[in-house]
Amino acid sequence: MLTKNEIKYIRLLQDKKHRDTENRFVVEGTKWLQDLWQWQPGLLETLYTTESWISAHGSGIDKQKIRIIADFELEKISALSHPAPVIAVVCKPEKEKLPFSQHQWNIVLDGIQDPGNLGSIIRIADWFGLPAIWCSPDCADAFNPKVVQATMGSLCRVLVQYIKLETWLTGTNLPVYMSGMEGKSLFDIHEKSGILVIGSEGKGVRKEIASKATHHITIPRLGHAESLNAAVAAGIMVAKLTAPREGSKGH
Amino acid sequence: MLTKNEIKYIRLLQDKKHRDTENRFVVEGTKWLQDLWQWQPGLLETLYTTESWISAHGSGIDKQKIRIIADFELEKISALSHPAPVIAVVCKPEKEKLPFSQHQWNIVLDGIQDPGNLGSIIRIADWFGLPAIWCSPDCADAFNPKVVQATMGSLCRVLVQYIKLETWLTGTNLPVYMSGMEGKSLFDIHEKSGILVIGSEGKGVRKEIASKATHHITIPRLGHAESLNAAVAAGIMVAKLTAPREGSKGH
Repeated sequence: MLTKNEIKYIRLLQDKKHRDTENRFVVEGTKWLQDLWQWQPGLLETLYTTESWISAHGSGIDKQKIRIIADFELEKISALSHPAPVIAVVCKPEKEKLPFSQHQWNIVLDGIQDPGNLGSIIRIADWFGLPAIWCSPDCADAFNPKVVQATMGSLCRVLVQYIKLETWLTGTNLPVYMSGMEGKSLFDIHEKSGILVIGSEGKGVRKEIASKATHHITIPRLGHAESLNAAVAAGIMVAKLTAPREGSKGH
Repeated sequence: MLTKNEIKYIRLLQDKKHRDTENRFVVEGTKWLQDLWQWQPGLLETLYTTESWISAHGSGIDKQKIRIIADFELEKISALSHPAPVIAVVCKPEKEKLPFSQHQWNIVLDGIQDPGNLGSIIRIADWFGLPAIWCSPDCADAFNPKVVQATMGSLCRVLVQYIKLETWLTGTNLPVYMSGMEGKSLFDIHEKSGILVIGSEGKGVRKEIASKATHHITIPRLGHAESLNAAVAAGIMVAKLTAPREGSKGH
Protein backbone atom coordinates (compact mmCIF):
# COMPACT_ATOMS: atom_id res chain seq x y z
CA MET A 1 0.00 0.00 0.00
CA LEU A 2 1.33 3.41 -1.01
CA THR A 3 1.50 5.99 1.74
CA LYS A 4 0.01 9.45 1.23
CA ASN A 5 3.53 10.86 1.24
CA GLU A 6 4.66 8.54 -1.53
CA ILE A 7 1.68 9.48 -3.69
CA LYS A 8 2.33 13.16 -3.04
CA TYR A 9 6.04 12.81 -3.82
CA ILE A 10 5.42 11.12 -7.19
CA ARG A 11 2.67 13.55 -8.16
CA LEU A 12 4.85 16.55 -7.32
CA LEU A 13 7.40 15.30 -9.84
CA GLN A 14 4.91 16.38 -12.53
CA ASP A 15 6.11 19.93 -11.75
CA LYS A 16 9.44 21.13 -13.10
CA LYS A 17 10.31 22.89 -9.84
CA HIS A 18 10.16 19.64 -7.92
CA ARG A 19 11.93 17.66 -10.63
CA ASP A 20 14.77 20.18 -10.45
CA THR A 21 14.94 20.12 -6.65
CA GLU A 22 14.72 16.34 -6.36
CA ASN A 23 16.76 15.63 -9.51
CA ARG A 24 14.23 12.91 -10.33
CA PHE A 25 11.50 12.36 -12.93
CA VAL A 26 8.74 9.86 -13.67
CA VAL A 27 8.56 7.32 -16.46
CA GLU A 28 5.52 5.24 -17.44
CA GLY A 29 5.09 2.21 -19.67
CA THR A 30 6.57 -1.21 -20.29
CA LYS A 31 8.66 -0.36 -23.37
CA TRP A 32 10.13 2.72 -21.70
CA LEU A 33 11.07 0.80 -18.55
CA GLN A 34 12.64 -1.97 -20.59
CA ASP A 35 14.74 0.61 -22.45
CA LEU A 36 15.73 2.22 -19.16
CA TRP A 37 16.72 -1.12 -17.67
CA GLN A 38 18.76 -1.98 -20.75
CA TRP A 39 20.49 1.39 -21.26
CA GLN A 40 20.57 3.21 -17.93
CA PRO A 41 19.80 0.69 -15.15
CA GLY A 42 21.68 2.79 -12.61
CA LEU A 43 19.14 5.61 -12.98
CA LEU A 44 16.17 3.53 -11.82
CA GLU A 45 15.26 4.43 -8.27
CA THR A 46 11.90 2.79 -7.60
CA LEU A 47 9.62 0.86 -9.88
CA TYR A 48 5.92 0.77 -8.97
CA THR A 49 3.95 -2.03 -10.55
CA THR A 50 1.71 -5.04 -10.03
CA GLU A 51 2.56 -8.69 -9.34
CA SER A 52 1.32 -9.62 -12.81
CA TRP A 53 3.59 -7.12 -14.58
CA ILE A 54 6.60 -8.42 -12.62
CA SER A 55 5.76 -12.01 -13.60
CA ALA A 56 5.60 -11.04 -17.27
CA HIS A 57 8.39 -8.47 -17.58
CA GLY A 58 10.33 -8.23 -14.34
CA SER A 59 13.07 -10.83 -14.81
CA GLY A 60 16.48 -9.36 -14.16
CA ILE A 61 15.25 -6.19 -12.46
CA ASP A 62 16.83 -5.61 -9.04
CA LYS A 63 14.15 -6.68 -6.53
CA GLN A 64 15.15 -4.05 -4.02
CA LYS A 65 13.97 -1.43 -6.48
CA ILE A 66 10.51 -2.95 -7.01
CA ARG A 67 7.46 -1.82 -5.08
CA ILE A 68 4.40 -4.02 -5.69
CA ILE A 69 1.15 -2.06 -5.65
CA ALA A 70 -2.48 -2.51 -6.74
CA ASP A 71 -4.01 -1.36 -10.03
CA PHE A 72 -6.06 1.34 -8.34
CA GLU A 73 -2.86 2.74 -6.84
CA LEU A 74 -1.26 3.05 -10.28
CA GLU A 75 -4.15 5.33 -11.19
CA LYS A 76 -3.33 7.56 -8.23
CA ILE A 77 0.26 8.19 -9.30
CA SER A 78 -0.09 8.21 -13.09
CA ALA A 79 0.00 11.40 -15.14
CA LEU A 80 -1.78 9.65 -18.03
CA SER A 81 -5.51 9.36 -18.64
CA HIS A 82 -4.92 5.64 -19.21
CA PRO A 83 -2.27 4.71 -16.60
CA ALA A 84 0.48 2.39 -17.72
CA PRO A 85 0.94 -0.92 -15.84
CA VAL A 86 4.32 0.24 -14.59
CA ILE A 87 5.53 3.61 -13.32
CA ALA A 88 9.01 4.46 -12.10
CA VAL A 89 10.82 7.24 -10.32
CA VAL A 90 14.08 7.75 -12.17
CA CYS A 91 17.19 9.83 -11.45
CA LYS A 92 18.09 12.44 -14.04
CA PRO A 93 21.35 11.62 -15.82
CA GLU A 94 24.47 13.37 -14.53
CA LYS A 95 24.82 16.94 -15.63
CA GLU A 96 28.31 16.94 -17.13
CA LYS A 97 27.94 18.90 -20.37
CA LEU A 98 28.99 17.31 -23.65
CA PRO A 99 30.77 19.68 -26.04
CA PHE A 100 29.61 19.89 -29.67
CA SER A 101 30.93 16.96 -31.70
CA GLN A 102 33.53 17.80 -34.37
CA HIS A 103 32.60 14.73 -36.40
CA GLN A 104 28.80 14.69 -36.40
CA TRP A 105 25.91 17.04 -36.84
CA ASN A 106 24.85 18.77 -33.62
CA ILE A 107 21.16 19.66 -33.18
CA VAL A 108 20.50 22.94 -31.38
CA LEU A 109 16.92 23.95 -30.51
CA ASP A 110 15.82 27.52 -29.91
CA GLY A 111 12.51 27.92 -28.07
CA ILE A 112 10.81 24.62 -28.95
CA GLN A 113 8.05 24.69 -26.36
CA ASP A 114 5.65 22.04 -27.58
CA PRO A 115 6.30 18.86 -25.56
CA GLY A 116 5.29 16.57 -28.44
CA ASN A 117 7.69 18.29 -30.81
CA LEU A 118 10.58 18.13 -28.34
CA GLY A 119 9.89 14.44 -27.70
CA SER A 120 9.77 13.72 -31.44
CA ILE A 121 13.06 15.56 -31.99
CA ILE A 122 14.74 13.51 -29.23
CA ARG A 123 13.55 10.37 -31.10
CA ILE A 124 14.96 11.79 -34.34
CA ALA A 125 18.39 12.31 -32.71
CA ASP A 126 18.24 8.75 -31.38
CA TRP A 127 17.19 7.29 -34.76
CA PHE A 128 20.05 9.01 -36.57
CA GLY A 129 22.65 8.14 -33.94
CA LEU A 130 23.23 11.58 -32.42
CA PRO A 131 24.10 11.24 -28.71
CA ALA A 132 22.92 14.66 -27.55
CA ILE A 133 20.89 17.75 -28.36
CA TRP A 134 21.43 21.29 -27.09
CA CYS A 135 18.43 23.43 -26.06
CA SER A 136 17.85 27.06 -25.13
CA PRO A 137 16.58 27.37 -21.53
CA ASP A 138 13.07 28.29 -22.77
CA CYS A 139 12.57 24.99 -24.60
CA ALA A 140 10.16 22.54 -22.95
CA ASP A 141 11.67 20.52 -20.10
CA ALA A 142 12.82 17.12 -21.38
CA PHE A 143 11.67 15.52 -18.10
CA ASN A 144 8.10 16.87 -18.39
CA PRO A 145 5.79 13.79 -18.44
CA LYS A 146 4.47 14.65 -21.94
CA VAL A 147 7.99 14.94 -23.37
CA VAL A 148 9.13 11.78 -21.61
CA GLN A 149 6.14 9.92 -23.09
CA ALA A 150 6.73 11.32 -26.59
CA THR A 151 10.38 10.20 -26.58
CA MET A 152 9.26 6.55 -26.39
CA GLY A 153 12.41 5.67 -24.44
CA SER A 154 14.87 7.64 -26.58
CA LEU A 155 15.56 9.89 -23.59
CA CYS A 156 17.66 6.97 -22.20
CA ARG A 157 20.06 7.34 -25.10
CA VAL A 158 20.05 11.04 -25.98
CA LEU A 159 21.44 13.58 -23.53
CA VAL A 160 19.32 16.75 -23.55
CA GLN A 161 21.36 19.75 -22.44
CA TYR A 162 20.08 23.24 -21.60
CA ILE A 163 22.66 25.89 -22.39
CA LYS A 164 23.10 29.57 -23.13
CA LEU A 165 23.03 29.29 -26.92
CA GLU A 166 24.65 32.67 -27.58
CA THR A 167 27.76 31.70 -25.61
CA TRP A 168 28.08 28.23 -27.08
CA LEU A 169 27.53 29.40 -30.67
CA THR A 170 30.07 32.19 -30.24
CA GLY A 171 32.62 29.82 -28.79
CA THR A 172 32.55 27.14 -31.47
CA ASN A 173 34.76 26.72 -34.54
CA LEU A 174 32.09 24.63 -36.29
CA PRO A 175 29.92 26.05 -39.08
CA VAL A 176 26.52 27.18 -37.74
CA TYR A 177 23.60 26.39 -40.08
CA MET A 178 20.51 28.38 -39.26
CA SER A 179 17.28 26.85 -40.58
CA GLY A 180 14.51 29.10 -41.78
CA MET A 181 12.32 30.17 -44.68
CA GLU A 182 15.28 31.41 -46.71
CA GLY A 183 18.80 30.27 -47.48
CA LYS A 184 20.65 27.62 -49.43
CA SER A 185 18.67 24.49 -50.26
CA LEU A 186 19.11 21.72 -47.69
CA PHE A 187 19.70 19.38 -50.62
CA ASP A 188 22.83 21.30 -51.62
CA ILE A 189 24.54 20.87 -48.23
CA HIS A 190 27.07 18.03 -48.26
CA GLU A 191 29.11 18.72 -45.12
CA LYS A 192 29.43 15.86 -42.66
CA SER A 193 29.49 17.89 -39.47
CA GLY A 194 28.30 21.20 -38.15
CA ILE A 195 25.66 22.78 -35.98
CA LEU A 196 22.03 22.83 -37.11
CA VAL A 197 19.86 25.40 -35.33
CA ILE A 198 16.09 24.87 -35.38
CA GLY A 199 13.63 27.46 -34.09
CA SER A 200 9.96 27.27 -33.15
CA GLU A 201 7.28 27.07 -35.84
CA GLY A 202 5.65 30.30 -34.91
CA LYS A 203 8.66 32.50 -34.32
CA GLY A 204 11.62 30.80 -35.98
CA VAL A 205 15.08 31.31 -34.55
CA ARG A 206 15.46 34.43 -32.37
CA LYS A 207 17.44 37.30 -33.89
CA GLU A 208 20.25 37.22 -31.35
CA ILE A 209 20.75 33.54 -32.16
CA ALA A 210 20.33 33.97 -35.93
CA SER A 211 23.15 36.53 -35.87
CA LYS A 212 25.56 33.68 -35.00
CA ALA A 213 24.86 31.94 -38.33
CA THR A 214 27.66 31.13 -40.74
CA HIS A 215 25.09 29.69 -43.21
CA HIS A 216 21.33 29.87 -43.72
CA ILE A 217 19.50 26.80 -45.01
CA THR A 218 15.94 26.01 -45.97
CA ILE A 219 13.78 23.08 -47.06
CA PRO A 220 12.75 24.05 -50.61
CA ARG A 221 9.01 24.62 -50.83
CA LEU A 222 7.23 23.37 -53.95
CA GLY A 223 3.68 24.19 -52.80
CA HIS A 224 1.97 26.73 -50.58
CA ALA A 225 2.03 25.69 -46.91
CA GLU A 226 3.24 28.52 -44.72
CA SER A 227 5.41 26.26 -42.58
CA LEU A 228 6.11 22.69 -41.58
CA ASN A 229 5.65 21.28 -38.10
CA ALA A 230 8.93 21.90 -36.20
CA ALA A 231 9.61 18.20 -35.56
CA VAL A 232 8.85 17.33 -39.20
CA ALA A 233 11.28 20.03 -40.38
CA ALA A 234 13.93 18.77 -37.93
CA GLY A 235 13.46 15.20 -39.20
CA ILE A 236 13.80 16.22 -42.86
CA MET A 237 16.97 18.18 -42.17
CA VAL A 238 18.68 15.66 -39.91
CA ALA A 239 17.84 12.80 -42.31
CA LYS A 240 19.41 14.63 -45.24
CA LEU A 241 22.45 15.89 -43.34
CA THR A 242 23.29 12.50 -41.82
CA ALA A 243 22.47 10.55 -44.99
CA PRO A 244 25.98 10.66 -46.50
CA ARG A 245 27.18 8.99 -43.36
CA GLU A 246 25.09 5.90 -44.09
CA GLY A 247 27.06 2.73 -43.52
CA SER A 248 29.09 4.13 -40.63
CA LYS A 249 27.42 3.41 -37.31
CA GLY A 250 26.37 6.55 -35.46
CA HIS A 251 28.10 6.27 -32.09
CA MET B 1 -27.09 37.31 -30.72
CA LEU B 2 -26.71 33.64 -31.54
CA THR B 3 -29.80 31.50 -31.11
CA LYS B 4 -29.68 28.27 -29.13
CA ASN B 5 -30.22 26.37 -32.36
CA GLU B 6 -27.25 28.04 -34.04
CA ILE B 7 -24.99 27.23 -31.07
CA LYS B 8 -26.24 23.65 -31.07
CA TYR B 9 -25.72 23.30 -34.84
CA ILE B 10 -22.10 24.52 -34.71
CA ARG B 11 -21.27 22.41 -31.68
CA LEU B 12 -22.73 19.29 -33.27
CA LEU B 13 -20.27 19.73 -36.14
CA GLN B 14 -17.58 18.64 -33.70
CA ASP B 15 -18.97 15.11 -34.24
CA LYS B 16 -18.09 13.23 -37.41
CA LYS B 17 -21.64 11.88 -37.79
CA HIS B 18 -23.04 15.38 -38.06
CA ARG B 19 -20.23 16.62 -40.28
CA ASP B 20 -21.02 13.76 -42.65
CA THR B 21 -24.78 14.40 -42.60
CA GLU B 22 -24.49 18.16 -42.99
CA ASN B 23 -21.45 18.06 -45.29
CA ARG B 24 -20.02 20.96 -43.29
CA PHE B 25 -17.15 21.48 -40.86
CA VAL B 26 -15.85 24.23 -38.59
CA VAL B 27 -12.69 26.30 -39.01
CA GLU B 28 -11.16 28.62 -36.40
CA GLY B 29 -8.49 31.29 -36.63
CA THR B 30 -7.48 34.31 -38.68
CA LYS B 31 -4.74 32.67 -40.76
CA TRP B 32 -6.98 29.71 -41.61
CA LEU B 33 -9.88 31.95 -42.66
CA GLN B 34 -7.59 34.09 -44.79
CA ASP B 35 -6.33 30.96 -46.55
CA LEU B 36 -9.88 29.77 -47.06
CA TRP B 37 -10.96 33.10 -48.48
CA GLN B 38 -7.96 33.16 -50.82
CA TRP B 39 -8.10 29.54 -52.03
CA GLN B 40 -11.66 28.29 -51.61
CA PRO B 41 -13.97 31.28 -51.08
CA GLY B 42 -16.93 29.34 -52.43
CA LEU B 43 -16.77 26.91 -49.50
CA LEU B 44 -17.34 29.58 -46.83
CA GLU B 45 -20.91 29.39 -45.56
CA THR B 46 -21.04 31.59 -42.47
CA LEU B 47 -18.32 33.47 -40.68
CA TYR B 48 -18.88 34.26 -37.00
CA THR B 49 -16.76 37.04 -35.61
CA THR B 50 -16.63 40.40 -33.86
CA GLU B 51 -16.83 43.94 -35.24
CA SER B 52 -13.18 44.49 -34.39
CA TRP B 53 -12.01 41.41 -36.35
CA ILE B 54 -13.99 42.55 -39.38
CA SER B 55 -12.43 46.02 -39.20
CA ALA B 56 -8.95 44.54 -39.12
CA HIS B 57 -9.25 41.54 -41.48
CA GLY B 58 -12.65 41.52 -43.14
CA SER B 59 -12.03 43.59 -46.26
CA GLY B 60 -13.20 41.76 -49.35
CA ILE B 61 -15.22 39.11 -47.53
CA ASP B 62 -18.80 38.83 -48.77
CA LYS B 63 -20.89 40.68 -46.16
CA GLN B 64 -23.83 38.34 -46.57
CA LYS B 65 -21.70 35.59 -45.12
CA ILE B 66 -20.66 37.50 -42.01
CA ARG B 67 -22.45 37.16 -38.70
CA ILE B 68 -21.28 39.67 -36.07
CA ILE B 69 -21.33 38.26 -32.56
CA ALA B 70 -19.87 39.07 -29.13
CA ASP B 71 -16.66 37.66 -27.64
CA PHE B 72 -18.55 35.59 -25.08
CA GLU B 73 -20.52 34.00 -27.92
CA LEU B 74 -17.30 32.91 -29.65
CA GLU B 75 -16.48 30.98 -26.50
CA LYS B 76 -19.79 29.14 -26.75
CA ILE B 77 -19.15 27.82 -30.25
CA SER B 78 -15.38 27.26 -30.14
CA ALA B 79 -13.83 23.80 -29.85
CA LEU B 80 -10.58 25.32 -28.56
CA SER B 81 -9.61 26.05 -24.97
CA HIS B 82 -8.56 29.51 -26.19
CA PRO B 83 -11.24 30.45 -28.77
CA ALA B 84 -10.03 32.12 -31.94
CA PRO B 85 -11.42 35.58 -32.82
CA VAL B 86 -13.12 34.12 -35.88
CA ILE B 87 -14.98 30.86 -36.42
CA ALA B 88 -16.62 29.70 -39.64
CA VAL B 89 -18.93 27.00 -40.87
CA VAL B 90 -17.45 25.70 -44.11
CA CYS B 91 -18.74 23.32 -46.78
CA LYS B 92 -16.64 20.23 -47.42
CA PRO B 93 -15.05 20.25 -50.87
CA GLU B 94 -16.85 18.28 -53.59
CA LYS B 95 -16.34 14.58 -53.43
CA GLU B 96 -15.16 13.82 -56.93
CA LYS B 97 -12.22 11.44 -56.47
CA LEU B 98 -8.85 12.33 -57.96
CA PRO B 99 -7.01 9.37 -59.47
CA PHE B 100 -3.37 8.76 -58.54
CA SER B 101 -1.03 11.10 -60.43
CA GLN B 102 1.24 9.46 -63.00
CA HIS B 103 3.76 12.29 -62.73
CA GLN B 104 4.11 12.91 -59.02
CA TRP B 105 4.44 10.98 -55.79
CA ASN B 106 1.12 9.97 -54.26
CA ILE B 107 0.88 9.71 -50.46
CA VAL B 108 -1.34 6.90 -49.16
CA LEU B 109 -2.03 6.59 -45.42
CA ASP B 110 -3.06 3.37 -43.73
CA GLY B 111 -4.62 3.75 -40.28
CA ILE B 112 -3.13 7.11 -39.21
CA GLN B 113 -5.45 7.85 -36.30
CA ASP B 114 -3.64 10.60 -34.45
CA PRO B 115 -5.21 13.96 -35.47
CA GLY B 116 -1.96 15.87 -35.03
CA ASN B 117 -0.09 13.44 -37.27
CA LEU B 118 -2.75 13.56 -39.99
CA GLY B 119 -2.77 17.37 -39.86
CA SER B 120 1.03 17.49 -40.11
CA ILE B 121 1.01 15.11 -43.09
CA ILE B 122 -1.54 17.31 -44.89
CA ARG B 123 0.86 20.25 -44.34
CA ILE B 124 3.72 18.13 -45.70
CA ALA B 125 1.74 17.38 -48.88
CA ASP B 126 0.97 21.08 -49.24
CA TRP B 127 4.60 22.12 -48.65
CA PHE B 128 5.88 19.72 -51.30
CA GLY B 129 3.19 20.61 -53.83
CA LEU B 130 1.13 17.43 -53.76
CA PRO B 131 -2.54 18.20 -54.44
CA ALA B 132 -4.10 15.22 -52.65
CA ILE B 133 -3.58 12.39 -50.20
CA TRP B 134 -5.39 9.05 -50.06
CA CYS B 135 -6.48 7.58 -46.71
CA SER B 136 -7.87 4.28 -45.48
CA PRO B 137 -11.34 4.73 -43.95
CA ASP B 138 -9.95 4.15 -40.43
CA CYS B 139 -7.63 7.17 -40.60
CA ALA B 140 -8.67 10.18 -38.52
CA ASP B 141 -11.32 12.39 -40.15
CA ALA B 142 -9.66 15.33 -41.91
CA PHE B 143 -12.56 17.58 -40.83
CA ASN B 144 -12.16 16.74 -37.13
CA PRO B 145 -11.44 20.09 -35.35
CA LYS B 146 -8.02 18.90 -34.13
CA VAL B 147 -6.96 17.86 -37.63
CA VAL B 148 -8.32 21.06 -39.17
CA GLN B 149 -6.32 23.07 -36.63
CA ALA B 150 -3.14 21.06 -37.18
CA THR B 151 -3.29 21.61 -40.97
CA MET B 152 -2.84 25.37 -40.43
CA GLY B 153 -4.89 26.07 -43.55
CA SER B 154 -3.30 23.44 -45.81
CA LEU B 155 -6.64 21.62 -45.94
CA CYS B 156 -7.75 24.37 -48.37
CA ARG B 157 -5.16 23.19 -50.87
CA VAL B 158 -4.85 19.44 -50.30
CA LEU B 159 -7.75 17.13 -51.11
CA VAL B 160 -8.03 14.35 -48.51
CA GLN B 161 -9.73 11.30 -49.96
CA TYR B 162 -10.98 8.23 -48.09
CA ILE B 163 -10.82 5.13 -50.24
CA LYS B 164 -10.67 1.35 -50.11
CA LEU B 165 -6.89 1.03 -50.33
CA GLU B 166 -6.88 -2.63 -51.41
CA THR B 167 -8.95 -1.83 -54.50
CA TRP B 168 -7.02 1.27 -55.49
CA LEU B 169 -3.61 -0.35 -54.97
CA THR B 170 -4.67 -3.40 -57.00
CA GLY B 171 -5.99 -1.23 -59.82
CA THR B 172 -2.91 0.97 -60.35
CA ASN B 173 -0.03 0.55 -62.78
CA LEU B 174 2.23 2.70 -60.60
CA PRO B 175 4.96 1.22 -58.42
CA VAL B 176 3.77 0.83 -54.81
CA TYR B 177 6.45 1.66 -52.22
CA MET B 178 5.62 0.33 -48.79
CA SER B 179 7.43 2.11 -45.95
CA GLY B 180 8.52 0.13 -42.92
CA MET B 181 11.40 -1.07 -40.79
CA GLU B 182 12.95 -3.06 -43.63
CA GLY B 183 13.57 -2.59 -47.33
CA LYS B 184 15.74 -0.59 -49.69
CA SER B 185 17.19 2.63 -48.31
CA LEU B 186 15.04 5.67 -49.03
CA PHE B 187 18.20 7.40 -50.18
CA ASP B 188 18.64 4.90 -53.02
CA ILE B 189 15.22 5.63 -54.54
CA HIS B 190 15.44 8.01 -57.49
CA GLU B 191 12.08 7.53 -59.20
CA LYS B 192 10.03 10.66 -59.82
CA SER B 193 6.59 9.18 -59.34
CA GLY B 194 4.90 6.33 -57.56
CA ILE B 195 2.77 5.54 -54.55
CA LEU B 196 4.20 5.87 -51.05
CA VAL B 197 2.24 3.96 -48.39
CA ILE B 198 2.70 5.03 -44.76
CA GLY B 199 1.26 3.09 -41.83
CA SER B 200 0.71 3.99 -38.21
CA GLU B 201 3.62 4.16 -35.78
CA GLY B 202 2.38 1.39 -33.58
CA LYS B 203 1.19 -1.11 -36.13
CA GLY B 204 2.82 -0.15 -39.43
CA VAL B 205 1.02 -0.94 -42.67
CA ARG B 206 -1.61 -3.71 -42.40
CA LYS B 207 -0.70 -7.06 -43.97
CA GLU B 208 -3.45 -6.99 -46.59
CA ILE B 209 -2.15 -3.60 -47.74
CA ALA B 210 1.53 -4.56 -47.49
CA SER B 211 0.84 -7.46 -49.85
CA LYS B 212 0.20 -4.93 -52.63
CA ALA B 213 3.80 -3.64 -52.44
CA THR B 214 6.04 -3.68 -55.46
CA HIS B 215 8.92 -2.28 -53.33
CA HIS B 216 9.72 -1.96 -49.64
CA ILE B 217 11.61 1.10 -48.42
CA THR B 218 12.98 2.24 -45.11
CA ILE B 219 14.67 5.25 -43.53
CA PRO B 220 18.11 3.90 -42.59
CA ARG B 221 18.57 3.85 -38.83
CA LEU B 222 21.99 4.82 -37.47
CA GLY B 223 21.04 4.77 -33.78
CA HIS B 224 18.63 2.88 -31.55
CA ALA B 225 15.16 4.48 -31.52
CA GLU B 226 12.48 1.88 -32.14
CA SER B 227 10.52 4.12 -34.50
CA LEU B 228 10.00 7.66 -35.69
CA ASN B 229 6.82 9.66 -35.26
CA ALA B 230 4.57 8.88 -38.27
CA ALA B 231 4.44 12.48 -39.50
CA VAL B 232 8.22 12.86 -39.12
CA ALA B 233 8.77 9.68 -41.13
CA ALA B 234 6.32 10.90 -43.79
CA GLY B 235 8.13 14.24 -43.99
CA ILE B 236 11.55 12.62 -44.38
CA MET B 237 10.30 10.35 -47.15
CA VAL B 238 8.30 12.91 -49.10
CA ALA B 239 11.16 15.44 -48.88
CA LYS B 240 13.63 12.94 -50.32
CA LEU B 241 11.31 11.57 -53.00
CA THR B 242 10.25 14.98 -54.28
CA ALA B 243 13.75 16.50 -53.96
CA PRO B 244 14.93 15.64 -57.52
CA ARG B 245 12.00 17.65 -58.74
CA GLU B 246 13.40 20.82 -57.17
CA GLY B 247 13.20 23.72 -59.56
CA SER B 248 9.95 22.59 -61.17
CA LYS B 249 6.97 24.11 -59.40
CA GLY B 250 4.72 21.53 -57.77
CA HIS B 251 1.32 22.09 -59.37
